[in-house]
Amino acid sequence: MPPLVPRITIITLGVDDLERAVAFYHDGLGWPTEGIIGAEFPDGGVAFFALSGGLQFALWPRTSLAKDAGLPPGRPNPTELSLAYNVSEPSEVDTVFATAVAAGAMPTKLPGPTFWGGYAGYFQDPDGHLWEVAFNPDLLPTD
Amino acid sequence: MPPLVPRITIITLGVDDLERAVAFYHDGLGWPTEGIIGAEFPDGGVAFFALSGGLQFALWPRTSLAKDAGLPPGRPNPTELSLAYNVSEPSEVDTVFATAVAAGAMPTKLPGPTFWGGYAGYFQDPDGHLWEVAFNPDLLPTD
Repeated sequence: MPPLVPRITIITLGVDDLERAVAFYHDGLGWPTEGIIGAEFPDGGVAFFALSGGLQFALWPRTSLAKDAGLPPGRPNPTELSLAYNVSEPSEVDTVFATAVAAGAMPTKLPGPTFWGGYAGYFQDPDGHLWEVAFNPDLLPTD
Repeated sequence: MPPLVPRITIITLGVDDLERAVAFYHDGLGWPTEGIIGAEFPDGGVAFFALSGGLQFALWPRTSLAKDAGLPPGRPNPTELSLAYNVSEPSEVDTVFATAVAAGAMPTKLPGPTFWGGYAGYFQDPDGHLWEVAFNPDLLPTD
């Protein structure tokens, strides 16, 4: 088999309350979206956000995702994954973190120095999904 | 608060067996990586894969991620998220799917027509994380 292009085109997070999730990312963080589309299909209601670099970010009810994938709906687990939001300066970690918390995020680790020489904190979105807001001098955003 | 740039810099998946996970993505799918780095730090061992478009993909033990984030390790749940691998033609879905299965992926839904007018299938990686391999004429890869 030839090697596959290393690619992720969409990251979809399963959510319990789609409107609440869209409110967090759109109203709270300010991310652009057309809102909930596809609601004319059973289990079709979904929201897409176009991110920097061409990646798509989607929010979809956990029950819809489970059904579409052919799996039973599981019990949520916040440590399945972490999404990183890297920034250009340590102080920006604090600003982004405060924005997220003001929007309803739950901090699990307040921003502070990390073992790998950076500065970062973690929060959970309204569905428990984990985000790390990080300053890493070796991984600065390019957008 | 000003809106945040819509950005994900790293997607980290929690895994139970880091070497097995690296073998799946590197040896099985052919994705480039320097292999496991950071093992000199407690809970530091991690593998990074540079994806198209500048996104980083990381594999990190679930226990390390939980500890770093300040959360108890939870019970794995395969329907927390789905990562999509979009391709340029329906037949490519079958090829990519076969490559993943040959590498040890577990199919949950074999490739077939979708309700949104595309062609797609789902599999789980060795740690249960869900991938959708999809042809969507409205979302073709650009890399």
